[in-house]
Amino acid sequence: MIPELDDCVLDHIAIAVNDIETTKKVYEDLGLTFSDKREVVEKQGVTTAFAAIDHNAHIELLEPFGETGPIHKYLEKKGPGIHHICFKVKDVRAKCDDLKAKGYKLLNEEPVPGANNCLVNFLHPKGCGGVLIEVSQHLGE
Amino acid sequence: MIPELDDCVLDHIAIAVNDIETTKKVYEDLGLTFSDKREVVEKQGVTTAFAAIDHNAHIELLEPFGETGPIHKYLEKKGPGIHHICFKVKDVRAKCDDLKAKGYKLLNEEPVPGANNCLVNFLHPKGCGGVLIEVSQHLGE
Repeated sequence: MIPELDDCVLDHIAIAVNDIETTKKVYEDLGLTFSDKREVVEKQGVTTAFAAIDHNAHIELLEPFGETGPIHKYLEKKGPGIHHICFKVKDVRAKCDDLKAKGYKLLNEEPVPGANNCLVNFLHPKGCGGVLIEVSQHLGE
Repeated sequence: MIPELDDCVLDHIAIAVNDIETTKKVYEDLGLTFSDKREVVEKQGVTTAFAAIDHNAHIELLEPFGETGPIHKYLEKKGPGIHHICFKVKDVRAKCDDLKAKGYKLLNEEPVPGANNCLVNFLHPKGCGGVLIEVSQHLGE
């Protein structure tokens, strides 16, 4: 681990896609390899697929699962593209408390379950220069 | 290096900002550290600042330099936010030739100079699920 990154490293870049199996070809053509695993996160209304892009970081393709989740709405409004970036932290509650104390708005009062057995929260993009930033704590394999 | 990443790793996530010194505080509050270096890439009409987010990857903040570059136009049209993602490859010409042969459109006929002594080209977002993807070859320190 690079010393200055011991509490905040890129976990993934999340990309909203209409169809995972079509869009993943772009990244495969670049030279990346997707895991065969597809995970549905029902509460977020998404199916996910991951490809490694650095020691910690992955591309996460987000395909709508059902028609009520935020990615379905995002695709209807803006079309496919980069949806958010996510940083892995050691303690998501402590990080969120610290960020709240610094004046940032979180989208959830408490962290919620994400893909890959994580606990996650999001910073409101209005306070982050237009970027939707997720913070995530891995709870173990 | 992770074996499957030997020819394509994330180099940076580029974020269009109105002002580097204001927006970098968000990433510093998350726990990241920006280099003091600010590089102007006149041909691209930007000033850049970098913070490490993984072993290879960085956040690159892109502030307009002058009023004619693509980041100035992007900010006027869409406001601040994630502009593109960049993958580091061993040989940018070979990678672009391969991608052209696979049917992808490149924004430049030949690679052009980027920040940090790189040679870069861009894939058209229409062929890449709405994502502007840069490929970059480091020419050395």
